[in-house]
Amino acid sequence: MIRAGIVGGTGYTGVELLRILALHSEVEVAVVTSRGDAGIRVDAVYPSLRGHIDVLFTAPELDTLASCDVVFFATPNGTAMLMAEQLLACGVKVIDLSADFRLKDAAEWSHWYGMEHACPELISEAVYGLPEIHRDAIKQARLVACAGCYPTAVQLGFLPLIENGLVDVGNLIADVKSGVSGAGRKAELSSLMSEMGESFKAYGVSGHRHLPEISQGLRQMAGKAVNLTFVPHLTPMIRGIHATLYSQLTASVADIQALYEQRYQQETFVDVLPQGAHPSTRDVRGSNNCQIAIHQPQGGNTIVVLSVIDNLVKGASGQAVQVMNLMFGLPEDAGLAIVALYP
Amino acid sequence: MIRAGIVGGTGYTGVELLRILALHSEVEVAVVTSRGDAGIRVDAVYPSLRGHIDVLFTAPELDTLASCDVVFFATPNGTAMLMAEQLLACGVKVIDLSADFRLKDAAEWSHWYGMEHACPELISEAVYGLPEIHRDAIKQARLVACAGCYPTAVQLGFLPLIENGLVDVGNLIADVKSGVSGAGRKAELSSLMSEMGESFKAYGVSGHRHLPEISQGLRQMAGKAVNLTFVPHLTPMIRGIHATLYSQLTASVADIQALYEQRYQQETFVDVLPQGAHPSTRDVRGSNNCQIAIHQPQGGNTIVVLSVIDNLVKGASGQAVQVMNLMFGLPEDAGLAIVALYP
Amino acid sequence: MIRAGIVGGTGYTGVELLRILALHSEVEVAVVTSRGDAGIRVDAVYPSLRGHIDVLFTAPELDTLASCDVVFFATPNGTAMLMAEQLLACGVKVIDLSADFRLKDAAEWSHWYGMEHACPELISEAVYGLPEIHRDAIKQARLVACAGCYPTAVQLGFLPLIENGLVDVGNLIADVKSGVSGAGRKAELSSLMSEMGESFKAYGVSGHRHLPEISQGLRQMAGKAVNLTFVPHLTPMIRGIHATLYSQLTASVADIQALYEQRYQQETFVDVLPQGAHPSTRDVRGSNNCQIAIHQPQGGNTIVVLSVIDNLVKGASGQAVQVMNLMFGLPEDAGLAIVALYP
Amino acid sequence: MIRAGIVGGTGYTGVELLRILALHSEVEVAVVTSRGDAGIRVDAVYPSLRGHIDVLFTAPELDTLASCDVVFFATPNGTAMLMAEQLLACGVKVIDLSADFRLKDAAEWSHWYGMEHACPELISEAVYGLPEIHRDAIKQARLVACAGCYPTAVQLGFLPLIENGLVDVGNLIADVKSGVSGAGRKAELSSLMSEMGESFKAYGVSGHRHLPEISQGLRQMAGKAVNLTFVPHLTPMIRGIHATLYSQLTASVADIQALYEQRYQQETFVDVLPQGAHPSTRDVRGSNNCQIAIHQPQGGNTIVVLSVIDNLVKGASGQAVQVMNLMFGLPEDAGLAIVALYP
Repeated sequence: MIRAGIVGGTGYTGVELLRILALHSEVEVAVVTSRGDAGIRVDAVYPSLRGHIDVLFTAPELDTLASCDVVFFATPNGTAMLMAEQLLACGVKVIDLSADFRLKDAAEWSHWYGMEHACPELISEAVYGLPEIHRDAIKQARLVACAGCYPTAVQLGFLPLIENGLVDVGNLIADVKSGVSGAGRKAELSSLMSEMGESFKAYGVSGHRHLPEISQGLRQMAGKAVNLTFVPHLTPMIRGIHATLYSQLTASVADIQALYEQRYQQETFVDVLPQGAHPSTRDVRGSNNCQIAIHQPQGGNTIVVLSVIDNLVKGASGQAVQVMNLMFGLPEDAGLAIVALYP
Repeated sequence: MIRAGIVGGTGYTGVELLRILALHSEVEVAVVTSRGDAGIRVDAVYPSLRGHIDVLFTAPELDTLASCDVVFFATPNGTAMLMAEQLLACGVKVIDLSADFRLKDAAEWSHWYGMEHACPELISEAVYGLPEIHRDAIKQARLVACAGCYPTAVQLGFLPLIENGLVDVGNLIADVKSGVSGAGRKAELSSLMSEMGESFKAYGVSGHRHLPEISQGLRQMAGKAVNLTFVPHLTPMIRGIHATLYSQLTASVADIQALYEQRYQQETFVDVLPQGAHPSTRDVRGSNNCQIAIHQPQGGNTIVVLSVIDNLVKGASGQAVQVMNLMFGLPEDAGLAIVALYP
Repeated sequence: MIRAGIVGGTGYTGVELLRILALHSEVEVAVVTSRGDAGIRVDAVYPSLRGHIDVLFTAPELDTLASCDVVFFATPNGTAMLMAEQLLACGVKVIDLSADFRLKDAAEWSHWYGMEHACPELISEAVYGLPEIHRDAIKQARLVACAGCYPTAVQLGFLPLIENGLVDVGNLIADVKSGVSGAGRKAELSSLMSEMGESFKAYGVSGHRHLPEISQGLRQMAGKAVNLTFVPHLTPMIRGIHATLYSQLTASVADIQALYEQRYQQETFVDVLPQGAHPSTRDVRGSNNCQIAIHQPQGGNTIVVLSVIDNLVKGASGQAVQVMNLMFGLPEDAGLAIVALYP
Repeated sequence: MIRAGIVGGTGYTGVELLRILALHSEVEVAVVTSRGDAGIRVDAVYPSLRGHIDVLFTAPELDTLASCDVVFFATPNGTAMLMAEQLLACGVKVIDLSADFRLKDAAEWSHWYGMEHACPELISEAVYGLPEIHRDAIKQARLVACAGCYPTAVQLGFLPLIENGLVDVGNLIADVKSGVSGAGRKAELSSLMSEMGESFKAYGVSGHRHLPEISQGLRQMAGKAVNLTFVPHLTPMIRGIHATLYSQLTASVADIQALYEQRYQQETFVDVLPQGAHPSTRDVRGSNNCQIAIHQPQGGNTIVVLSVIDNLVKGASGQAVQVMNLMFGLPEDAGLAIVALYP
């Protein structure tokens, strides 16, 4: 049994990790930390976990966490970078769901996240946690920086087009819509149901933190600079991300549908829908799947890719478990055979 | 492996059975019928099942269904009673999620369901499928009539009070609220999101079909006639039932909380919350749990019981699988170790 | 033109007052206060008001408010009682949407609201702002304590039964469901869309502040003590209250439907639906109407009354404007001819 | 008083017309037709209109309609073109909310709408009902084809850029999201709350009927051919459209914000938000406003315009009333001074 610790167990990615790990046959959840709720039973805060998780929240202490085989950081940005080095030194593998180790350029990170990076020396070692692209590196990693929610949906959607050099990477558009759980479990006016319900809006159009992360990934796929316009939106539902991706063909391609199907044919968690389909976020709710459809409206030059995930699963905690499975030599889908909750 | 057939695979209870059975290690879904969609892949209609269910819809034929060990009826009322007898004769166990065999009085059934009962001779054999009350009979049964969604939430909520003779059964009130999936997957104006969203209403106050079913169950608990006022409501969410139950104490009882905890202490799927709690439907969403809390406002005579379930799981398909497990000697929770999807 | 001031313009009842008063032909909104947003344009905080309200938020100063003819308090409890006396002394009429002056017993008020009452000497003068019951007193009042949202729906629903002595007031039940805007515009975890969306729960079963307010009102109708069980619930929608009221007939009545129709026939804002109807909260969304239906299930002794309002309109700001119209001798429906927003 | 008739009063645009016209001081709603509901009171079908509309549905008869000054068609496509000619011959003005007369090319209309056009001779006379572009023509018109919901949001958003020749009209993208009331009041599986709630999806990516309508409008603005990629989506809310528009600058512009503000400065119903803003659909809910914001992410070449309307008001019935006001020489905002319903 793998002993797992979760730092920051009171956010939505934390409780989602617990939902998944509670039923993972190879994992024992040994430590769940929360400064605010230390001493309280986890299932007293989350009654959905009653009967499944039998631990108390504890304060985040190195000693306790060092007894784990793996520690997940389900924390706000800026926490994992303070503890990762010590945990690695104790032989603990670290899976960071926050953004601390995602960007390879520490200065760029500081620019977008508004603080100095506390542990720049680990940045280069950290492997970017998107298994469909970095599977082999993840298997060898001690420290993995899980891909963000928007970045997962966008990168998986663009990948076959860009790695095959089929589109103009100087003009990429990602119009992305997220459920409100993406804003986290924080007491903020803007996240009230009375504010967010029955309403739709864009936000962060002038610049969102996921822009440099996505650009970095697309640049690696393309092998050259890319230009991405990224517009996130809030949609009045709890879970789900829908990315609508626009790019301009620069090469002729016999069958884009087949290209996608081949690229993802070995991937358990990426599902290319039949020609003409329109994926719904509900069909991946609660599951670790990414469903993708490709359209070429009016047979023109613009390729429209539709890519959906559950932001808390493939966009966060499910992906983290997929990463853990790889790091520990388990079947990649261990604990992740979840059927989406429809309706 | 148990070979299972599902008649009526295109309603919400049908697809929910598929969600659960797809991951049940002892069950193979062999047949899924639908007149309208015969010949189409099940996962073409329900993309949430892609990768999990590899069968086509077929027309409902006795021959095919007779090859199953168990057949679930996830059909509108009036279908199971036409086929149950023949299936039983072939040695197939039958689990009916519809209301055909729930009422013990055929005349009362006809009154509420507006048609003659086509198979009254099986009514007395049929066991009422609420395992927490009829477990032993279910284990021996060939034909089980699963309890309805409202009846499950209400009966589990009232049970300890009534079977102990603590309240006035001449004045029981069940004010019950359901998510809209309870209305089924039917093209009806009243079920449109534009009609049901952001609105709350009662319906069927003058008489709802679940009234005689609940009354029959409460009468059995009480051992005498009962008088129940039952008011169902529609609440703008997809899944979940919340029953608020009112009754008047007629006996003094030292500790009602303890009474409930003892009654349900061996029950995997009934969870009595700590004193003072208020269950939320979200905490049982997708799971087979019933969460219950008991209140005695201002220390008065009125007992208020709060009881929540997911109408499609403990109120329908999860309960049917729990019943199947009992009928086939499997662990009662096989395939039902599901953590609720929160948030 | 009536010069109106609003203290506490940044909560939902404040912005709702602005929505209504912006189109009221006899009112000029002269002052809108907010400590936190002083100096900012009101429509910068509420873009829905752009083009309709051309004032800045100011700090709440007596001098400014004293220049108004009427001041509305759309504040948390405990604010109006600090300023009412001075405003009245300046000849300003005061309409309080908070609970400060609703309870006639200062000790009871302190018990439920957890603070000393700062202005007990005005309690007896304050008129309870439910025009359908206290119209004449409101017309003469300097200070009106508007009825709360739950209390409005419940009292209007019970009124004809109780004032005619038809039911057992020793056993009244109000099972009431509210949209989430009732929780106010406050940054609280429990009000997040991820917490409240797609879920239903009861709260405050052991005791809610509206219980003594409703009991006081029912007691006045009955002319004797009453016993009410009051259970509020949160339903996943923004606006709307649905009260389901249960009482036991103690007298025979020829025609309860007619009784309700007669009682409310002169009331612009109380609408008795035809026999057999079930009101929906959507049909009063944004309007000042209360829609009521009466049922007697199975012809028994239990009367079920269904009563719906928009908690922010008839349950708060619309009622406050109705009260203002009465206090200033305007037509009672001035500015309140609003058709509900359906769908 | 203008005598108004509404053909097709049982859809969402019909009831929305009734909501607006009920309070329009210059209009009397004389006739509301519905084949299915003829003889029934309008407010029996729509309790939200009780107290505001005192007519019965009647069958759609030319004689009755000919007594009106104006007839609105709130019908499915294909109805207005059968009756318009006769009504015009009787001197009745016709305002069509359906798509029958929107496209200037009858063959293109037949291609997209799947039927022959029954009245091609009126196509050239029909004025396109988008007042901000065709105000003068509308004032003179006998027959107006109101702009569609998506076309209104998209054209108002692109207008200043395109009419000034600032962007590459060979590469325009409109990623548009609609609330579910846009699907109409039709009993369809796909519009159930259980299907549409808590889920987001694109649809019609390969070709949607509003594409030729928008392209026609943009082509007129540009004075040359345009190439538009139009992707509509369904978002889980009832009302609202949010258009996110992408175009590439081809000319340098000193101040795009100022350009938009100037273009719309005389327009009552188009509101350019301050620099940096993100409009929310909730802020126009129920009102006839279009709120627009303009962004230039990272100071690059891509202009992102955000444009929101209420699909049933500025996208349908409000616009129709605005058109009527122009046709009858009334103030353009008569009956349309509505503050959006927030929250």
